[in-house]
Amino acid sequence: MSNNEAKIVFTPSGKRGSFALGTSVLDAARSLGVDVDSVCGGRAMCGRCQVNVAEGEFAKHAITSKGEHLSAFGEVETRFAERRRSFKPGRRLSCQATIQGDLVIDVPAESQMHRQVVRKSAEHRDITLDLYFVEVREADMYEPTGDVQRLLEALESQWELPDLKCDSTVLPGLQTALRKDNWQVTVAVYKKSRVIAVWPGFKQDAYGIAMDIGSTTIAANLINLTNGNVVATDGIMNPQIRFGEDLMSRVSYVMMNADGAADLTSTVREGVNKLIAGLAKEGGIDVDEIVEVTVAGNPIMHHLFLGLSPVELGTAPFALVTDAALDLGAAELGLEINSGATVYVLPCIAGHVGADAAAMILAEEPYLLDEISLIVDVGTNAEIVLGNRDGLLACSSPTGPAFEGAQISCGQRAAPGAIERVRIDPETLVARFSVIGSSDEPGFAEAIDAFGVTGICGSGIIEAVAEMYLTGIITEDGVVDGSMSERSDRVIQNDRTWSYFLHDGVQKIVVTQNDVRQIQLAKGALYAGVKLLLDKAGIESVDRIRLAGAFGSHIDTKYAMVLGLIPDCDLKNVESAGNAAGTGARIALLNVAARGEIESVVRKIKKIETAVEPKFQEYFVDAMALPNKTDKFPKLFSVVKRPEPKVAKNDSDRPRRRRRSKA
Amino acid sequence: MSNNEAKIVFTPSGKRGSFALGTSVLDAARSLGVDVDSVCGGRAMCGRCQVNVAEGEFAKHAITSKGEHLSAFGEVETRFAERRRSFKPGRRLSCQATIQGDLVIDVPAESQMHRQVVRKSAEHRDITLDLYFVEVREADMYEPTGDVQRLLEALESQWELPDLKCDSTVLPGLQTALRKDNWQVTVAVYKKSRVIAVWPGFKQDAYGIAMDIGSTTIAANLINLTNGNVVATDGIMNPQIRFGEDLMSRVSYVMMNADGAADLTSTVREGVNKLIAGLAKEGGIDVDEIVEVTVAGNPIMHHLFLGLSPVELGTAPFALVTDAALDLGAAELGLEINSGATVYVLPCIAGHVGADAAAMILAEEPYLLDEISLIVDVGTNAEIVLGNRDGLLACSSPTGPAFEGAQISCGQRAAPGAIERVRIDPETLVARFSVIGSSDEPGFAEAIDAFGVTGICGSGIIEAVAEMYLTGIITEDGVVDGSMSERSDRVIQNDRTWSYFLHDGVQKIVVTQNDVRQIQLAKGALYAGVKLLLDKAGIESVDRIRLAGAFGSHIDTKYAMVLGLIPDCDLKNVESAGNAAGTGARIALLNVAARGEIESVVRKIKKIETAVEPKFQEYFVDAMALPNKTDKFPKLFSVVKRPEPKVAKNDSDRPRRRRRSKA
Repeated sequence: MSNNEAKIVFTPSGKRGSFALGTSVLDAARSLGVDVDSVCGGRAMCGRCQVNVAEGEFAKHAITSKGEHLSAFGEVETRFAERRRSFKPGRRLSCQATIQGDLVIDVPAESQMHRQVVRKSAEHRDITLDLYFVEVREADMYEPTGDVQRLLEALESQWELPDLKCDSTVLPGLQTALRKDNWQVTVAVYKKSRVIAVWPGFKQDAYGIAMDIGSTTIAANLINLTNGNVVATDGIMNPQIRFGEDLMSRVSYVMMNADGAADLTSTVREGVNKLIAGLAKEGGIDVDEIVEVTVAGNPIMHHLFLGLSPVELGTAPFALVTDAALDLGAAELGLEINSGATVYVLPCIAGHVGADAAAMILAEEPYLLDEISLIVDVGTNAEIVLGNRDGLLACSSPTGPAFEGAQISCGQRAAPGAIERVRIDPETLVARFSVIGSSDEPGFAEAIDAFGVTGICGSGIIEAVAEMYLTGIITEDGVVDGSMSERSDRVIQNDRTWSYFLHDGVQKIVVTQNDVRQIQLAKGALYAGVKLLLDKAGIESVDRIRLAGAFGSHIDTKYAMVLGLIPDCDLKNVESAGNAAGTGARIALLNVAARGEIESVVRKIKKIETAVEPKFQEYFVDAMALPNKTDKFPKLFSVVKRPEPKVAKNDSDRPRRRRRSKA
Repeated sequence: MSNNEAKIVFTPSGKRGSFALGTSVLDAARSLGVDVDSVCGGRAMCGRCQVNVAEGEFAKHAITSKGEHLSAFGEVETRFAERRRSFKPGRRLSCQATIQGDLVIDVPAESQMHRQVVRKSAEHRDITLDLYFVEVREADMYEPTGDVQRLLEALESQWELPDLKCDSTVLPGLQTALRKDNWQVTVAVYKKSRVIAVWPGFKQDAYGIAMDIGSTTIAANLINLTNGNVVATDGIMNPQIRFGEDLMSRVSYVMMNADGAADLTSTVREGVNKLIAGLAKEGGIDVDEIVEVTVAGNPIMHHLFLGLSPVELGTAPFALVTDAALDLGAAELGLEINSGATVYVLPCIAGHVGADAAAMILAEEPYLLDEISLIVDVGTNAEIVLGNRDGLLACSSPTGPAFEGAQISCGQRAAPGAIERVRIDPETLVARFSVIGSSDEPGFAEAIDAFGVTGICGSGIIEAVAEMYLTGIITEDGVVDGSMSERSDRVIQNDRTWSYFLHDGVQKIVVTQNDVRQIQLAKGALYAGVKLLLDKAGIESVDRIRLAGAFGSHIDTKYAMVLGLIPDCDLKNVESAGNAAGTGARIALLNVAARGEIESVVRKIKKIETAVEPKFQEYFVDAMALPNKTDKFPKLFSVVKRPEPKVAKNDSDRPRRRRRSKA
C-alpha cells in the first residue's frame, strides 16, 4: 500500500478497503457497497450519512491522534450541527469527513438505507419511492433543450439514474419549481423508473396515506415515507351513508338512478379528500407532499371509489370488474394530493371478499404459519379466511347489521352513550353495564345528563344476550323464558313474547325476543360460513382465531364463544386483530415486496361462494341454536361467570371511566 | 407423405408445406408464417382472410376437380357473401375453406396484414393498434374472477397475447360491453401490450385523428386506422384568437391573468373537441371509435394544448418544459373521444421551433436525401430547416404577421374577397388581379356585390410589391417613386410618401409606403434566418426549396424569389410542401416507426437561436433591400414578366373561377 492510502473498515458490514487520503468516508462506503444513506448527494444537507468513528484500539488511535486519521470537524459540519438536532454529538457527516489514516467506521442503523420499521418483525421497509436532490443546468439559448431533459440529465449524472421517464403530471409545475430555488430541486422517483414529483430546493420527507374505505367509516393513516412513522391518524363517517346505511341500499340507489354510481363515487372521493386534508393539517404538512396512497375496502366500496358501477356485485354471479391490484394516478381518482402521486389498490378476492380482506390477510400473514388460523372481519357481511401455509380458503357470509347494533330495538352504533358491556346478576337478574364515552371528553357528561344511556351497541347486545342465556333468561332455542318473570320484574311481557328490561333511565333499554332472534340469525350466518370453510378444509377445529375490524376489536371473545359465533378454540389463542385492513394498507404502503406477496397469495386463495353451497343453509339453521351450556362451557363458565365488567375502551390511547353502573 | 395429407403452396411468399386433410387454409398459412390477416379469429366475420385459388396446372386441378382439393363453398361463406360486398367472386375465406388435396393459394395484397398505404413510397403502415375479436368466459360464482381477468385470459388463449395489461380507463365500461353482445367483444390493443378500448360485438374499424394546432387554424384529418384512408378533413379557426391574434399577445394574456394559461388551454381544447366531433359526424362514426391522436403545433400552441404555461417561451432563453415526444392519455387532455385513446405529441426542436416543424421534417424527410433542402414554414415566425442526410440545422425567424396580411393597410386574411394574385401593366401601371372565392360557394356573389373586394392577403401583397418593383414603381431601396405619378394616376401622394392605387371598388385598395416597409422587414427577417443557416452550414446555395403551410401553399414561388424571400435556386426545384405539418402528423399516426425516426432526427438537429447570433441583425438589415433586378433576375424576368394570372386555388378539390379582373 502506498503512503498516500489508508485502510478503512466499516461495521457492521465488515467491508474494508484502501483509499487515497482525502477520500470522503461516504465515497469510500459507496465504492465498497456499504449501505450508507444520502439524499442530498454529499452536500451536507440531509444528514442521512452520519457515522460513528468506532471504538477499539485501531479506531481509538483515529480519535485520539488529534484527528489525524479523519479530517477535522470542519465548518460545514459545525454549521450543520447548529441547524440540526438530529446530528448526534460525536458523529460525523460521512460526506464531509475525509480519510487521513486507517479507520474503523460504524454505520448506525438509521444511516442505513433499508431500515427496519418496528411494527412487527416481518415488516421490512422497502418503499417504492426515493427522493433525490439535484442541481439542474440552467436553460440556455445556445443549447435549447427542455427543462425536463435537463432535469433527467442531472438525475443521471448526479445520481446514476439513467432511462428515467417523467410523468406528464410533473410538467405543469416544473418550470416554476426549477426557477424558485436557483435550479435546485428535490425529485421523487417511483420504483427507480418514473419522476412523479418535483419540489423547489432541498426536501427531506415525503408522505403517504394508507386507507381503508369501509361502508360506515373511512379510516386513514398519514405516514412519513422516509422513516415509516405514522404522523397522523383519523377516521370519518363514510358520507355515502346519506344514500343508504348498508351496502345493498347503495347498490339499489345506483340501479334506480342514472347518475347513481357517479353520485356515490364523487361523494366518497369528497370524503376521502376531506379526511386527507385533515390528516395533512394535523401532521403539519402540505397535501402536495403526499405522493403515495394505498387503498383497501370491501368490493362495493372498492368499485365506487374507483368510479366503477357496483351493480354487478349486487346480484349473482357477483362479478367484479377486476380482482387484480391496481396502480393508478391520484389525478384520475380526483385525489387532492400531489398530482403525480400514485395510488396502489389492494387486490380483491371475490365478489363478496374484498381488498379489505386482502389487507387483513397481509397484516395477519396466516399463509406463513403452520398453525391453522381463522380470521374474521364482522361487518354487514362477515369476511372469513381459514387456513395456513398450505393454503387459504375465503368466503363471505351475510350476517346482516345486527352485530353493528342495527335492527335491534334499542340498538345503536358504537358511540358515546351506548351500552357496550353487560353483566347480569344470576340471583337478582339485575344488569350492571358500562357505557361508551369518557368523562374526559368534552360534552360527554352533559350528553349523558341530557340523553342518558342512549342505546346498546353491537358488543353490548352480544354480552346482553350471552348473559341472558347464561342466567337462564333465554333457553337454548333462544326463547325468552316468561317463567323467569316470577323471579324478577326484569323479565316483562311484551305482546305475546317476553323481553328483558336492562336499564330504566332517561330512555328505557330493553332486549326483546326479536332482538334475540336477530342475534341468532347473525351468529348463525357467521358460524355457517366458518363451518363451510372448515368442511372444505376437511378439519374440525382451528389453532388460532383473529377477530378484525371495529366489531372484532370491541367484542369480548369469551362471549363470542358463549354464543357460538366462532368455533371452539383455546381462549388464549383468540385475539382481536384490531384494524387489520388498515394495518395491511400501511404495510403495502411501506413495503413494495408485500404488494407482490399479497397479490400472489390472493391468486391462490380458494374462494367459496356461500350462496351456491347447498350445505350453507343447513348449517345456518343448525347454528341458530345457542350452544349447549352444560356440555361445552364448563371451562368458559368458570372464566366468564363472575368478573366485574372491565373498563372498556374504544380507543387504546384515551383514558376512559366507567360512568354508571347499577346493582 | 401419408394419404391423409396434402401439399399447399402460398403465393406470393412461396412458402409451402404439407397438412392433414381438413386443415383450414388459414391455419396452414399461420403455421407456415404466411402473412394472412384476420381480425375475428377465424369466425367468418371480418372477411380479412380472403384468398384466391391460384392459376396454373397444379391449381386448376384443384378448381376443376369439383372442389376435391378444397372444401366446397359452404353455408358460412354463402351467408358471408350475401352480407358483404367486399367478398369478391371466386375468392374463399381461408378460415372456412379446408384442404382436401394439393393446392396453390394466392394471398391478395389486401389480405396481407402490413399493407402499403399510397401517399408516398416511404410511408409504410405500421400502426400502434390492433383490434381483436374475442369470446369471453362468462362470470361464474364457482370461480369468482374479475371480468378483466377473463378478458385477458380470452386474449391470451384465443390470440396468443400473454402479459397484456388493461388500462384503468377501460374498466368503467367493461361490464356493460361484455354483457351487451353475449360476452363477445372487440378489443383495441396498443403496441401489443395494453388493452385500451373494448366494444360490444364484432367491430372492423377503429379511427385516429392527425392534428396540427396552429395559432390561427386547427386542422385535422380523421383516418381509418385499419386501412389508412382519410375519412374526413376539416379545419377551424383557433378559438384562442379572442385572447389575441398573435402568439405574443396570448403569452401576454397568460402573464397578466392568474388563470390565463388555464383559460387558453380550455379554449383550445374546446375547439379541438368541436373539430373532432365535426369530423366524426362527417365520417359517420361515433367519437368513441377514435382511439388514437397525433398532435403537431408550434411551441406555444403545443404548451397551451398540453396545459403548460407558455410564459417561459415568451422571454429568453425561451425554455420549453419538454422537447421530447409525449405519449399521453386522451382523458388527461380532456379530449372527448374514447376514454382509453392515446395521444402522441411530436417532439419540439427548440423554444421557437416546434412540433409542427418536426412534423414538417417527417413529411419532407430532408434527412434521407443527398441534396440540400431548405424547408420554410412561414407564419408569424418562420420556421426554417436546412440540410441533408449529413445533418440538419433549424431556426426560427421573427417575420411578423405581414406575410399573413396583418399590419398591412388594406391587408386581410386569405378569405373570400381578398386579392391573392396581382399583375401590373408596365405601360399603364394598371393592375389586374384575382380574388379568393368561388362563384360556386353560397353567398360569394352576394358578398362581392355588397362588400366588393375587401382587401389584400399575404400572397397578394407579395405579388403587388414584387410587381411594383418589377415595373419600377418602387426602387431597390423599397421607396415608392413619386416621379412615376407623372406616368400614371395610379401612383398617388399620401402625406409625405407615395402609394400605389391598386383597385377602386366598394373599397379603395392601396399599397402604401409603409406596407412596402412591412414586407421588407418580414422578408429581411426570413432571408436573414436562411442566410444564418447557410453560414452555419458553410454553404451558399441549396438544391431544393420547400415552402410549407398555408402561406407556402398560396405564394407564387417566382415572386418569392423576385423579392428575395428565399435564396436563388432553380425554379423547378422550388415547390410548395402543402400542409406538411398535417402530413407529418398523419404519418406519425399510421407509422409507429416514423415516430422513432423523427424523435431521433430531432435530437440530432443543430438548433440556432437567431436572437443571440450577432450576424443575424446585420443580415437582417442587408436583406431589407430588394434584389438587384439586372444582376440577378434576367432568367426570372423572362419567366415572370407577362403571364396571365393563374387561376388560384385555396383548396385543391374545389373548382373556382376568377371573379374580377380589370385592365
